[in-house]
Amino acid sequence: MDFTIRAATPEDCKDISRMIIELADYEKMSDQVKISHEVLKRDGFCQNPFYHCLIAEVPEEHKTKDGHVKVGYGLFFYTYSTWKGRCVYLEDLYVMPEFRGKGIGKALMSSVARVGKEQQCARLQLSVLDWNTPSMDFYIAKGAQNLTKSEGWHFLRFDGEALDKLAEEAPKK
Amino acid sequence: MDFTIRAATPEDCKDISRMIIELADYEKMSDQVKISHEVLKRDGFCQNPFYHCLIAEVPEEHKTKDGHVKVGYGLFFYTYSTWKGRCVYLEDLYVMPEFRGKGIGKALMSSVARVGKEQQCARLQLSVLDWNTPSMDFYIAKGAQNLTKSEGWHFLRFDGEALDKLAEEAPKK
Repeated sequence: MDFTIRAATPEDCKDISRMIIELADYEKMSDQVKISHEVLKRDGFCQNPFYHCLIAEVPEEHKTKDGHVKVGYGLFFYTYSTWKGRCVYLEDLYVMPEFRGKGIGKALMSSVARVGKEQQCARLQLSVLDWNTPSMDFYIAKGAQNLTKSEGWHFLRFDGEALDKLAEEAPKK
Repeated sequence: MDFTIRAATPEDCKDISRMIIELADYEKMSDQVKISHEVLKRDGFCQNPFYHCLIAEVPEEHKTKDGHVKVGYGLFFYTYSTWKGRCVYLEDLYVMPEFRGKGIGKALMSSVARVGKEQQCARLQLSVLDWNTPSMDFYIAKGAQNLTKSEGWHFLRFDGEALDKLAEEAPKK
């Protein structure tokens, strides 16, 4: 099947939002999605965008029964290593179920890697749940290293009250 | 001891670079540091900076025997959650050994949290090596959740040839 991969525009935010919810639904977590397409538009298309996104699109003749031609996305941002410099982080990779197995996910991921290389990034990083064996196996087969396993990196988060408290303790300016 | 926390300027890059190497030296990994102060300047002080940095500075009368008054740094960047929106990620937190135990590290971390809150970030995230018990205990005591333990998030990386290969496989534009 023909498909194209291209950079997202502000007009794609409704479709990105729809697919974010589809992905969360699949994980039975869609109640966790707190951001709207308006917020996506504000944060991805401002002067210093907080994320970037690639869209996978199919021709009209392959549109879904609901009329969708935007059938996948890869959302990423730039991070920084004080040892290696610029890196790219793939936050979400999603392809609508009926379009899987056609190389669209692979093409999205490779395209994010290419954008990263063009920006002189030394690494492409991402996180995977350890019970998500198909995804884990896919990335490892492509050459990814599991740094949690090999080096013991654990991922920590402050949010809600813990984050509020931390911020309040900052010295006065 | 008096100290101030402030945003880094391009003139701080030599000191940031010195402290990055000190931190890597402590981990016996300074041969891994591939970026120079020139690269730090280019990447942190361009139109779309790849990172941001806070500096901890002490008054002249407390300078080190080598004459340093910049004695710590917190280097961070913005990331993005497709569920919660803007997040901040603390990549490095460092205080020179002779200035530890004075609350400087804590003040740097809280200040990064405050900058994050000012930018409407919902989360402050970071990674810690599982054998680094003092750091892990410090963050957990402050209210951080260990998402590798509680949810099973593993951290994956493509670099070197694996990244080159991935990028080469991207569909032609």
